[in-house]
Amino acid sequence: MAAYTTDQRQLLTGSTFAVLKPATTKQVSDIVRLAAHHGIGIVPQGGNTSYCGGATPDASGRQIIVSLERMDRIREIDPVSMSISVDAGVILKNAQDAAAAAGLLLPLSLGAEGSCRIGGNIGTNAGGLSVVRYGMTRDLLLGIEAVLADGTVVSDMRKLRKNNTGYDVKQCFVGSEGTLGIVTGAVLRLAPLPVRRATAWLTLAGGVPLAELLGLVRRESADLLTTFEFMAARSIALATEAMIDPSSLRAGPGGAVLVEFASSSRHLDLDELMEAVLAEAIESGWLEDALLAQSGSQRTAMWRLREAIPEGEKRRNGSVKHDISVPLSSIQRFLDLAGSQVRSFDADLELSVYGHVGDGNLHYNVLVPPDVDRLEFTKWIESSLSLQLYDTAAALGGTFSAEHGVGRFKKHLLERYGDVGRIAAMRRIKTAFDPADIMNAGAVVRPLGEKSAC
Amino acid sequence: MAAYTTDQRQLLTGSTFAVLKPATTKQVSDIVRLAAHHGIGIVPQGGNTSYCGGATPDASGRQIIVSLERMDRIREIDPVSMSISVDAGVILKNAQDAAAAAGLLLPLSLGAEGSCRIGGNIGTNAGGLSVVRYGMTRDLLLGIEAVLADGTVVSDMRKLRKNNTGYDVKQCFVGSEGTLGIVTGAVLRLAPLPVRRATAWLTLAGGVPLAELLGLVRRESADLLTTFEFMAARSIALATEAMIDPSSLRAGPGGAVLVEFASSSRHLDLDELMEAVLAEAIESGWLEDALLAQSGSQRTAMWRLREAIPEGEKRRNGSVKHDISVPLSSIQRFLDLAGSQVRSFDADLELSVYGHVGDGNLHYNVLVPPDVDRLEFTKWIESSLSLQLYDTAAALGGTFSAEHGVGRFKKHLLERYGDVGRIAAMRRIKTAFDPADIMNAGAVVRPLGEKSAC
Repeated sequence: MAAYTTDQRQLLTGSTFAVLKPATTKQVSDIVRLAAHHGIGIVPQGGNTSYCGGATPDASGRQIIVSLERMDRIREIDPVSMSISVDAGVILKNAQDAAAAAGLLLPLSLGAEGSCRIGGNIGTNAGGLSVVRYGMTRDLLLGIEAVLADGTVVSDMRKLRKNNTGYDVKQCFVGSEGTLGIVTGAVLRLAPLPVRRATAWLTLAGGVPLAELLGLVRRESADLLTTFEFMAARSIALATEAMIDPSSLRAGPGGAVLVEFASSSRHLDLDELMEAVLAEAIESGWLEDALLAQSGSQRTAMWRLREAIPEGEKRRNGSVKHDISVPLSSIQRFLDLAGSQVRSFDADLELSVYGHVGDGNLHYNVLVPPDVDRLEFTKWIESSLSLQLYDTAAALGGTFSAEHGVGRFKKHLLERYGDVGRIAAMRRIKTAFDPADIMNAGAVVRPLGEKSAC
Repeated sequence: MAAYTTDQRQLLTGSTFAVLKPATTKQVSDIVRLAAHHGIGIVPQGGNTSYCGGATPDASGRQIIVSLERMDRIREIDPVSMSISVDAGVILKNAQDAAAAAGLLLPLSLGAEGSCRIGGNIGTNAGGLSVVRYGMTRDLLLGIEAVLADGTVVSDMRKLRKNNTGYDVKQCFVGSEGTLGIVTGAVLRLAPLPVRRATAWLTLAGGVPLAELLGLVRRESADLLTTFEFMAARSIALATEAMIDPSSLRAGPGGAVLVEFASSSRHLDLDELMEAVLAEAIESGWLEDALLAQSGSQRTAMWRLREAIPEGEKRRNGSVKHDISVPLSSIQRFLDLAGSQVRSFDADLELSVYGHVGDGNLHYNVLVPPDVDRLEFTKWIESSLSLQLYDTAAALGGTFSAEHGVGRFKKHLLERYGDVGRIAAMRRIKTAFDPADIMNAGAVVRPLGEKSAC
């Protein structure tokens, strides 16, 4: 059972008396009906890769887990309509591969793609590496099939880009983290498959205005920008240490940025375009150096370095993650303020800062010192420094969770930072869909009538 | 009062005892509180440009109209974060202009842009001419401020692309047509302002597979495609008749398509790209002719012709509109089936078919014969032929309302075609937000407990 009751980051171990693995939507509906009848709580689970304890049962042992892993069928790919219809238990990577085999791109890509499942991507409105170009899961979702808390099946597996026929019910499920029902199927939008890419590694000078650099690159790429990943020098060093075959790519005083353009057209010369854009950035004095990948293996090396950061953090002793987003115009201010906060909190703390800056999203991670207990340290930081950092983000119009969600770990943050009217509206939605609090109780928000909101 | 109580298409005249024009969110909240206390129904109104009677009160005279027209302030433009914050009563065109003045694009553009207001765009999830590239209103909405049916203010005016902190309450308001509360403010996403455009008029050969042509153009444009507007020959003829300075642009047997690419980068030669793409389309035998606009005035002429179609229909004697969307892979099949249905219904009927085919959206309009009463004819067609056409769209996985909404006119269609589970979920949402049915009662859907769902 351990794989189902312990969360991805091993911060929480819950308990359950049954893991159910339905194979059809009908079986999901039957399970929910029965559970509702007997007042048994349900924790829906996909790949169990939540960073916020959103997919793990509580310690009571009275919640059952409904795993979607057996519902892993790709139902249809329609290459003309550019859509893919899937069971919610399909692993993201498998959906990507199926789309690619049909000559199309499923433009959702994230670290966990080899194990996370589409239902979980919807439940958390997953973002990842290509949001700047293609948007988040919400932007890709065309149709849904879901089982409500009384067993009712919502069947709206449309392939339509436009369908304004009343409330778009599927939107409620996006980011609901299993608290409103169980998503059993989805139709996702596909994009033309890129046939050309240009990838560059930018070594940043000190004091580079990140948002302005992004603005320049985005504008002059004509929106062909698919990736703008910022990495601080420390993060790159950690990643390099973790690699068997270390990279020679380096960070400047301002860190580094991985930039990629992609085109589905053979009629554009992306290398030429990238060169022109980088020349402008160099002219502005923002770059110490810029390296344009000359081959597939150079491109792969750049990506491997970026992707090795989480592993680099893990090898050291892990990190306390802050999945922060601020308006682009406040990124520099956040980095300055947060940096001071960390220094005055404890001058010995080290940071690993990287993220999808193209979307205003920073993974602002505090490294766990090598010799301390990871769990203890995490609890300590999260109850002290983390709140200071979130306060700063909030004061700048930002958020404490850009793409990881709320789950069980961040409910106190929702209560602390959420607009009162918005939380009231959330509780109404929860009450409307799940008045008895059957669905993933303990995550995100509580129905009206219960003492605490979150 | 007539301007407030009669709908855009003059199909419905309601009655009211008061039109209220609040100037602040606080005033909106006070009005709603008072109305809720006294059980008085409210019809929120922006530009009153609904095609579905979504903004017009019923005949009872017991609903008040709350017009947002005095809340027309642009609150802030943040050029670095690429966002605009507005009062909900701002006219779309004014928001577009303000963005352009800051060197950015508000990529929402539709026929009514000179009079429709942002709150209404949100309430109907407005689409329009650039959806294929930039998405619908939902895709542009970053933040919201709204007054709920009890006067509670939801204040979530964020500029964040990513903010996964529980249910995204603002999504409920998108497409809600004023039935869940009153939107008073919004933050919209801006895009880099295009500095180059390439515009072409495609004269289609007979039997062109429209979706495949779109697929080719989209793919080979590298997603720089902003417009793909199909027009049947009859629609172009109507538009030409309505123009003071008639165009020489012509339709082929398969009609015509207006294609536009846009780039915010000076580093791309879009004319060259368009020529390469069109050469491929010509090679496929799909085009009789393709004209690439060589000047701003040629481009304007192409757009004027497209935009004159609704006026052309109006001058003749108007049309019965069917705002249909089908999966792209079924567009040809729909055109074939629907054409037969119209012919066997009445061989003398004429059609005007055009639309945003880039999004699978067809305005499939039946022309009102010159000598008949428009209202009578509309009622007759809508109670007979329209249902056949919608049946066909539905059978192909399509919808009876792609971008116009439901309002008061299309509730019977929602009841006829809506998935039972989805309508049940809609009613729960309505009940959660507005149990007493104060907000725009009579439009879209009814709370639980009432006899009819819609």
